[in-house]
Amino acid sequence: MTTQMIILNGGSSAGKSGIVRCLQAELPDQWLAFGVDSLIDAMPARMQTSDGGIEISADGAVATGADFRALEQAWARGIVAMARAGARIIVDDVFLGGATSQQRWQKLLDDQDDPLGVLWVGVRCDRAVAAAREIARGDRVRGMAAAQADLVHRGVHYDLEVDTTHTESLTCARTIAAHLG
Amino acid sequence: MTTQMIILNGGSSAGKSGIVRCLQAELPDQWLAFGVDSLIDAMPARMQTSDGGIEISADGAVATGADFRALEQAWARGIVAMARAGARIIVDDVFLGGATSQQRWQKLLDDQDDPLGVLWVGVRCDRAVAAAREIARGDRVRGMAAAQADLVHRGVHYDLEVDTTHTESLTCARTIAAHLG
Amino acid sequence: MTTQMIILNGGSSAGKSGIVRCLQAELPDQWLAFGVDSLIDAMPARMQTSDGGIEISADGAVATGADFRALEQAWARGIVAMARAGARIIVDDVFLGGATSQQRWQKLLDDQDDPLGVLWVGVRCDRAVAAAREIARGDRVRGMAAAQADLVHRGVHYDLEVDTTHTESLTCARTIAAHLG
Amino acid sequence: MTTQMIILNGGSSAGKSGIVRCLQAELPDQWLAFGVDSLIDAMPARMQTSDGGIEISADGAVATGADFRALEQAWARGIVAMARAGARIIVDDVFLGGATSQQRWQKLLDDQDDPLGVLWVGVRCDRAVAAAREIARGDRVRGMAAAQADLVHRGVHYDLEVDTTHTESLTCARTIAAHLG
Repeated sequence: MTTQMIILNGGSSAGKSGIVRCLQAELPDQWLAFGVDSLIDAMPARMQTSDGGIEISADGAVATGADFRALEQAWARGIVAMARAGARIIVDDVFLGGATSQQRWQKLLDDQDDPLGVLWVGVRCDRAVAAAREIARGDRVRGMAAAQADLVHRGVHYDLEVDTTHTESLTCARTIAAHLG
Repeated sequence: MTTQMIILNGGSSAGKSGIVRCLQAELPDQWLAFGVDSLIDAMPARMQTSDGGIEISADGAVATGADFRALEQAWARGIVAMARAGARIIVDDVFLGGATSQQRWQKLLDDQDDPLGVLWVGVRCDRAVAAAREIARGDRVRGMAAAQADLVHRGVHYDLEVDTTHTESLTCARTIAAHLG
Repeated sequence: MTTQMIILNGGSSAGKSGIVRCLQAELPDQWLAFGVDSLIDAMPARMQTSDGGIEISADGAVATGADFRALEQAWARGIVAMARAGARIIVDDVFLGGATSQQRWQKLLDDQDDPLGVLWVGVRCDRAVAAAREIARGDRVRGMAAAQADLVHRGVHYDLEVDTTHTESLTCARTIAAHLG
Repeated sequence: MTTQMIILNGGSSAGKSGIVRCLQAELPDQWLAFGVDSLIDAMPARMQTSDGGIEISADGAVATGADFRALEQAWARGIVAMARAGARIIVDDVFLGGATSQQRWQKLLDDQDDPLGVLWVGVRCDRAVAAAREIARGDRVRGMAAAQADLVHRGVHYDLEVDTTHTESLTCARTIAAHLG
């Protein structure tokens, strides 16, 4: 089956965005990229300060409320619809709910007659290295990288895992590209 | 019928983004915002330098190729799917094809049993004022504002038109909000 | 005397940045632009969360500490040195201390044998309009525009004042440019 | 002598910005950071399209004209003045002229009675790795990293060299911090 979606999951500062840009540069077809960052950009600014939105604590813990999750669910449904409409799609996500987050995507992907070819990719990074990269980015609340490094992978099943601890984004992207056949 | 989508159409530098942010701030519900800028951000960077992508000439003329339009069409289908899935959506678009561009959206909105409540809004701005604001932005190719000011409205039908020439974004947004009932 | 520096003072969301970009586009020479935003970008990220740095309250009030003011003073001295070294400089500032802030610049400009030609420009904007534009920007704490609209002009002397309430940035910039002779 | 300036030199995509942010986060004092990117931001947008400005070819070669170099020289003089005025300063630069670029800074640092304590740091990165990171950034003209990887270090003398090929920015920053005593 042709792969129509690539879903990357990894903690904050694990290096997902760099891999996405390399995939877009290297893959012969034109792929659209979406992710939790572009979703938050699409939301009202007040979602970051209101009940029901998304809250990042001073220690990097992330809590999402009912409004956030409702929009996220409709957004994910739309992303899947883009793939069904013929666009190749790369999603980079942070499965705060681990296996539960994956099942939510899985349900959207499965619940129609028209099955989508999806490649599930885990993006790993050593917890201390991700925390160091978080400092080098300068614009992230410290603690997110460490808090999410293992959490997001709990119970998740992948077709492929890459690890950015000692491997450049471009090399990871080429490994993923090779799996697309 | 409840309005589930607001589609704003206007030329470059007409003031669409400011209106979108005011709508997101003022409307009681949480609305997701998408538009041609976020679509381009989702595309591979090379779409801006390759055949088939999008090309902005030194005089501000914009030409889109087959790859761009194919992704745009799938993207629009996905945006409509988000609205059908329950999200309130604001789209800001630039109808380079005038009435033809509107019909493309209309077709996506109509072709199912489940009709969506859509509010069509024209965002006008005097050509010379839009050209002046283009200079004040500093990051746009000069000429786009003037080239698109009238072009994008040709043959397009609106529920409502606002004009940012002498009216602040917030006031325009409140006029739009009042139409949602 | 040739004008080597243009210092714009106005409250948050009064429209200073747009005027700066128009001046840079319209003036025949190449002018460098600096301001309080680029100063904050040059500071460590932790200046925005630490004692001694800069704190923006939920209501838009801005308080600066000793570390901030020490860096600001050295920065201003360096900006003046750039002008003395031959660069044409535009500064956009927010005189939170009103006349005191102006005197601080004045002292740096005066305290050498080599007097600099400076054009002092007040950038006014109706308080309610600035507050509306703050909402349209979407990335500013609400309340800053209203809190600063009058405060920053108290006791300040200008060569020229412009008002963006009903006048485009480009027109304001041309008014300023005409004063450079 | 107390170090008042840290000057980092390295090619595009060698990892200078990440090291700068880590230094700002880790050093006990508050350091201001400036560099060639913030200088270009301070210039009129048309400097990137005009004779006399800065031109980046499709293959990543960078050429600077007389206007650019005149502003750069006045800017560097101002940065040094900030340090003399008491601010701790980190500069990240790209010595396109190799030893000649260093001598230009050296001359500004030396030509007064008041000698500044400066730490010269070379930021190395394997050419192929820097080229890979350039692709992962997505917003850079391809070829700059490879073209500059060795060029910028020719004839330059350092107090310290770090290499980001296999070492995280934070570790490099800590190595530099240890040299400050």
